Amino acid sequence: MSKRRGRIEVLKHVSRVLQGNASGDPYERDLPCYLPPDYDAGSARYPVIYFLAGFTGTGRMLLNVSAFDEAIDARLDRLIGSGAMPPIILAMPDCMTRFGGSQYTNSSATGPYEDYVIDELVPFVDEKLRTLPGRDHRGVTGKSSGGYGALRLAMRHPDVFGALGSHAGDAYFDYCYFLDFPKFVLGIQKYGGTLESFYQRFTELPKKSEAFDVLNIVAMAACYSPNPDAPLGIDVPVDLRTGEVHAAVWQRWLDNDPVRMAPKCADALRSMRTIFIDAGLRDEFQLQLGARILCKRLDGLGVRYTYEEFDDGHMGIVYRYDRSLVELSKALA
Amino acid sequence: MSKRRGRIEVLKHVSRVLQGNASGDPYERDLPCYLPPDYDAGSARYPVIYFLAGFTGTGRMLLNVSAFDEAIDARLDRLIGSGAMPPIILAMPDCMTRFGGSQYTNSSATGPYEDYVIDELVPFVDEKLRTLPGRDHRGVTGKSSGGYGALRLAMRHPDVFGALGSHAGDAYFDYCYFLDFPKFVLGIQKYGGTLESFYQRFTELPKKSEAFDVLNIVAMAACYSPNPDAPLGIDVPVDLRTGEVHAAVWQRWLDNDPVRMAPKCADALRSMRTIFIDAGLRDEFQLQLGARILCKRLDGLGVRYTYEEFDDGHMGIVYRYDRSLVELSKALA
Amino acid sequence: MSKRRGRIEVLKHVSRVLQGNASGDPYERDLPCYLPPDYDAGSARYPVIYFLAGFTGTGRMLLNVSAFDEAIDARLDRLIGSGAMPPIILAMPDCMTRFGGSQYTNSSATGPYEDYVIDELVPFVDEKLRTLPGRDHRGVTGKSSGGYGALRLAMRHPDVFGALGSHAGDAYFDYCYFLDFPKFVLGIQKYGGTLESFYQRFTELPKKSEAFDVLNIVAMAACYSPNPDAPLGIDVPVDLRTGEVHAAVWQRWLDNDPVRMAPKCADALRSMRTIFIDAGLRDEFQLQLGARILCKRLDGLGVRYTYEEFDDGHMGIVYRYDRSLVELSKALA
Amino acid sequence: MSKRRGRIEVLKHVSRVLQGNASGDPYERDLPCYLPPDYDAGSARYPVIYFLAGFTGTGRMLLNVSAFDEAIDARLDRLIGSGAMPPIILAMPDCMTRFGGSQYTNSSATGPYEDYVIDELVPFVDEKLRTLPGRDHRGVTGKSSGGYGALRLAMRHPDVFGALGSHAGDAYFDYCYFLDFPKFVLGIQKYGGTLESFYQRFTELPKKSEAFDVLNIVAMAACYSPNPDAPLGIDVPVDLRTGEVHAAVWQRWLDNDPVRMAPKCADALRSMRTIFIDAGLRDEFQLQLGARILCKRLDGLGVRYTYEEFDDGHMGIVYRYDRSLVELSKALA
Repeated sequence: MSKRRGRIEVLKHVSRVLQGNASGDPYERDLPCYLPPDYDAGSARYPVIYFLAGFTGTGRMLLNVSAFDEAIDARLDRLIGSGAMPPIILAMPDCMTRFGGSQYTNSSATGPYEDYVIDELVPFVDEKLRTLPGRDHRGVTGKSSGGYGALRLAMRHPDVFGALGSHAGDAYFDYCYFLDFPKFVLGIQKYGGTLESFYQRFTELPKKSEAFDVLNIVAMAACYSPNPDAPLGIDVPVDLRTGEVHAAVWQRWLDNDPVRMAPKCADALRSMRTIFIDAGLRDEFQLQLGARILCKRLDGLGVRYTYEEFDDGHMGIVYRYDRSLVELSKALA
Repeated sequence: MSKRRGRIEVLKHVSRVLQGNASGDPYERDLPCYLPPDYDAGSARYPVIYFLAGFTGTGRMLLNVSAFDEAIDARLDRLIGSGAMPPIILAMPDCMTRFGGSQYTNSSATGPYEDYVIDELVPFVDEKLRTLPGRDHRGVTGKSSGGYGALRLAMRHPDVFGALGSHAGDAYFDYCYFLDFPKFVLGIQKYGGTLESFYQRFTELPKKSEAFDVLNIVAMAACYSPNPDAPLGIDVPVDLRTGEVHAAVWQRWLDNDPVRMAPKCADALRSMRTIFIDAGLRDEFQLQLGARILCKRLDGLGVRYTYEEFDDGHMGIVYRYDRSLVELSKALA
Repeated sequence: MSKRRGRIEVLKHVSRVLQGNASGDPYERDLPCYLPPDYDAGSARYPVIYFLAGFTGTGRMLLNVSAFDEAIDARLDRLIGSGAMPPIILAMPDCMTRFGGSQYTNSSATGPYEDYVIDELVPFVDEKLRTLPGRDHRGVTGKSSGGYGALRLAMRHPDVFGALGSHAGDAYFDYCYFLDFPKFVLGIQKYGGTLESFYQRFTELPKKSEAFDVLNIVAMAACYSPNPDAPLGIDVPVDLRTGEVHAAVWQRWLDNDPVRMAPKCADALRSMRTIFIDAGLRDEFQLQLGARILCKRLDGLGVRYTYEEFDDGHMGIVYRYDRSLVELSKALA
Repeated sequence: MSKRRGRIEVLKHVSRVLQGNASGDPYERDLPCYLPPDYDAGSARYPVIYFLAGFTGTGRMLLNVSAFDEAIDARLDRLIGSGAMPPIILAMPDCMTRFGGSQYTNSSATGPYEDYVIDELVPFVDEKLRTLPGRDHRGVTGKSSGGYGALRLAMRHPDVFGALGSHAGDAYFDYCYFLDFPKFVLGIQKYGGTLESFYQRFTELPKKSEAFDVLNIVAMAACYSPNPDAPLGIDVPVDLRTGEVHAAVWQRWLDNDPVRMAPKCADALRSMRTIFIDAGLRDEFQLQLGARILCKRLDGLGVRYTYEEFDDGHMGIVYRYDRSLVELSKALA
């Protein structure tokens, strides 16, 4: 096995579309990119895969080290070095917002993150690095909300992406979000009972992860049901005291559900060179059910895909990244 | 405080309507009734309250003893003896089915339990015991599925019941049942993946409580969406493999939701001499949210009621029974 | 299978030794006894098994009914009716205290419950019922703290009991109690931080089960390390603020551990006609480990026994009672 | 507030003492060091604090980024920039082993990590960076096993360290380890039931965190009770089948307990310029009890210290690092 290593190049990007974004998040962001072992020595061009981070994650965090799990660069070194996959460039965008994530949507409550990736980062990477340009050499994958982002961006931008991976991506919102509404309602009442009081107290919490149950629904609402006239610029799909569902707001969420989006994006899906989907048998957010329902839709639409269920939950499944990286890189090479 | 005790009279009732019931459950059943301390010594007539047991419960179980909780007869002795409530008769029906309960509905999959209570038990009690007859002296209360039963029977039979109590009663099915659908789907797959395979294995389990997550949804489906042509006579509201919701079946469930039933039963609700509703702040089935939404409906309909939230969960809240017993007995005296 | 049923005879017993007991518990108690189907029709004498209830349990509770589990009388009817075991009398003592149980010990903090069973109940039952007298026809079994009681009473009174059963009985106190000390310490601080403040608030709790983590250690201390000069008459084995272990008090507990008692009671154990021990593979109190260690001791002492591990936890394992009832009754017939 | 930033210098160190270590771990390691904002511009010398990582952690991981928590360099920039603490150098050693950690001990099963820090890293840092040399300007702190390491190294090497911090450090092994023995025993049986079978399967697990319950006890045994003649070079303190405690092995662990070490190291402890200890009120490993007992020992020995309990658990408490960094840096300036 080759011991040669790729390297991380951190591109600095100044966004135009994120300037003045509603949640006051930075418009100058780092874009770490993995360059394969031979990149510097030669002049070859490489396919590029965009790896989208999950909720509360950024591309940069894929490089965090831990005792027993490989960081993404070590993972790629191993996979490329062993010949398991062809060399690629991996771009790791930062689409973070003050709410913990953007779901890779354009939203008046956060910012135009879908545009940011599609209109700014993709051309920027093609300009700065020796990519093989064109959708047939460009893929997108991710985990959890990043898997959702990959599904969303590929379905809506088949001109930009030609291959798609989703590890435990958000799908069938009836289960992956709706089930948390009671916790959200009971939780927000501990933080004053309004979106503003929650957010104010959230910013003051020493350990913010304690409020992630609440934050997650706020963030999803910021992405799926923004409303410039509402508190924090957000409509939430439930009454904050009783939990009663607001059907119209909830419908706005459902319009963003990959299961509901798929029929409208059938051509895009059919055009993918490869689609890789997986989920854990014991996913704590029931995303294996969402994945099964999505697969059933794909079956109905005549879309080809690979689906795997693995014996694990939702967290700590970085070892699964091998699968989409291998499948996508082969299809894009 | 008076030390005089009431006593339990176990009436034997042979049901006509339960004969040949679909799930093969007994049609001869005991009906334990509490008679107040002075019953045998005098000739007075008493109001009667029907106490409906929750899922997997029967009236008889209200008499089970434990180390630190009062059984229902000791509870009534104390409340009546101290003058906290006037003397009453308490009837404790057995509406059990092979699935763990009937929700006090008429169902082709279980039996006509609503008719059983209304058409058979009520006249039977009035005949056998010295009750004060008439809806103004007859109330119904219960806990959990028994609270649901009380809501249902009082809303639909205001000619029979004039007062209503519900401790943590099933309401807003979106939260109290829907949230368990993923667990149900994943659970049933461990038992062979079909209703028949599940039920067969369930009957063989040494400890049946291990399967209550699955059984509960099967039982509710037996009550809310029976279908004589389907396996076990039951339509379930989700696909047993993917969990996808069957909207038409789910709508049949929602038609039985107290929150949805209330507007159609506004006159009945307004006619109650008292309505007592409570739920725990930490109810594990989110029934405090259902209760809040129900109360909001009652407000909109001009229905008067008492609502209490208490600092506890769903289980082991027998001490709360004092509240409905006191409120109902005063209103019915 | 025979459909004949045994019946419950509730003997009323007035204890001499429990009069004036330290915790003010009743000295007049019911002793429910199961009499086999043919008891009333004939004049035969029967072996008698004492079934000891677990913590917070009494003999009477063995007769509580539930939806899917057999009460003890139905269980015996079935086992005797099917010929799986010979007919027996089952005596179900009440050794409850205000702390939730006595562990069947003599304690200055609760009362002389070991004497109560051995010196009073056994002769009383032999007098009132047609028992086969003598230790060769008398056994003792139980579950959890009742299994502990059976181990203790049989080890210390081989003249009284000739067969022994223990379902998930307390053993190897290092695991079954020690592991709860931190919870106990942190818990008692919520109740004022002293034994007296805890007990006072405990008596006022509407739902006492919320405090069982704390109560359990208080109760065990009342049984294993009473001290008439200490608050509540009890020495606890840990500092109530820091949790630091008091070695001398802890040693008093260990002296009561079946694992430590066994070598001193080797003759008694060897004299048993049968010893049946089991525990669940997933026992939440690690009693399967205690059972394994106990069995290792028995091996070392040349004691014969039957040991079974079953695929379940600690709670709701009434179906296991079949095993000790069958084994003991056969050995005692 | 100053916006000037310090920077990370990653020193490369080739260890002599770790060469040929028993567990085959690297002897060339990175030593990331934080240099304060003015370091490069001037020639001042600075106190140095060693921050020891917890179990499964290395110094490098303190630099991992996340959405809402500061990495250690951003934390120091803020604290120094605001004037909350004087400028310091922070050294972040890597004492990782194949078992997840070394507890900063010398062990024949892992390697001489205590020597590694004391004899090699400290002189190395003093040589490479502009430190204020001498124990009065050198402190050690850490969290969890790193807090333990700080306690251990300061107690045993008062000539090297003059200030000490411990966030939720391992103490009172009776609670922080003993309570996990049953889980360890039951866990290891899933991995073949021996240390070798466990370790073999552990190396093959895609998600190693699933085995941390077992690994943790193996690792502690490697540190506290190594035995070159035993499997993996480790004696474990319990029987792997029954869980029975091996008293002699367990005593070797206890000899390493800060609570037991303190009396032997009283002079060292009294010599510290500052001692900062904290723990969470809800620490999942009961380390607040260990901390309370340790403080009681310190009281008895006339040692001065600061102790804080905070309203949190054991995980995600990086925000607490501010406290020891501020206290130690002030004492060492």
